[in-house]
Amino acid sequence: MRISELSEASGVPVATLKYYLREGLLPPGESRGATRAEYAAGHLERVRLLRALIESAGLSIADVRRVVASLDHPPATRHELLGVAQRALPAAHRDHPVTPEVRALVAGLGWQVSTDAPALHTLSGAVAAARAGGIPLSADSLRRYAEAVEGVAVVDVATVRELEPERALLTVTVGTVLVDPVLAALRRLAQEGLSSRAT
Amino acid sequence: MRISELSEASGVPVATLKYYLREGLLPPGESRGATRAEYAAGHLERVRLLRALIESAGLSIADVRRVVASLDHPPATRHELLGVAQRALPAAHRDHPVTPEVRALVAGLGWQVSTDAPALHTLSGAVAAARAGGIPLSADSLRRYAEAVEGVAVVDVATVRELEPERALLTVTVGTVLVDPVLAALRRLAQEGLSSRAT
Repeated sequence: MRISELSEASGVPVATLKYYLREGLLPPGESRGATRAEYAAGHLERVRLLRALIESAGLSIADVRRVVASLDHPPATRHELLGVAQRALPAAHRDHPVTPEVRALVAGLGWQVSTDAPALHTLSGAVAAARAGGIPLSADSLRRYAEAVEGVAVVDVATVRELEPERALLTVTVGTVLVDPVLAALRRLAQEGLSSRAT
Repeated sequence: MRISELSEASGVPVATLKYYLREGLLPPGESRGATRAEYAAGHLERVRLLRALIESAGLSIADVRRVVASLDHPPATRHELLGVAQRALPAAHRDHPVTPEVRALVAGLGWQVSTDAPALHTLSGAVAAARAGGIPLSADSLRRYAEAVEGVAVVDVATVRELEPERALLTVTVGTVLVDPVLAALRRLAQEGLSSRAT
């Protein structure tokens, strides 16, 4: 299809598609002369992915570029997949030191996590930020949150295991950021649901 | 304390504090003449809260203003508290229609949720966005995610119940946004922990 048709099929304006091309987020179409290029179904899928990452997950262009680069250069083995995905994801508080509390929590749960996992820094920084903001986040609450979240990860890991490797990377990387807003919305509904049940 | 001391105690530059004052995010200090104002411990607590909301939770100034306004005008009864908090929170996909799938999910879980809860729209939109981005989010996975997230909300609701009412509003509103990044980091660590255990 031509770029105008790609625009129509995806609902994304041609100017935005050209921006994605310039930024290297969308691979170029196959050249059909000096002023025409042909786009395929894979381009449409990529454009939909870019919209979801930018609009729904709220990723910056720099973050989207890192996620997309990981998809374009998938790791050789399934074993490396999770590490590649985790490193491609945006992680706040990257420079926050990993706290002894977080190390102890992860060890206590029996999670085998690489010592330099970005999420160890993110978790340490996010816990410190919540407490600095006045939230009484006790070590006990944190452990109970972690146990509940393990149930979320069980679903994540089961979903990925059913997929062929090239879909698995997309699902881990993109699924982690695109499902975060789903989980956040569920949390708000569950709070209201439980609260009304209790009163 | 003077504004320079408030700056030192909070680590936030005086220019930023003046911006918070102009934007109405920080209540004015008590006047001590034409060019001096006196700030109290409550101001320091508010500045720390603003930093956490802006830096860690990544809220826009407009979102922060809505959260802070809800804290400055707390509801009269504990029963209203959750609704006020939920409406003060930023919610993506506010204009997305609530899907029959989401209504059925919530009903199936026995969550009593007001029919116009913003999170119903957010959840419907986030599910649609994840699927548009190529994530195979089945109705069954969604239900299993919701059951796991219920465990998170149990901790939320228990924490709030132990607090006196004025802390409770802060904890529900701010805790929901400040604990979201904690949960997201835990999810990444749990994925890695479970994945290494399984292989």
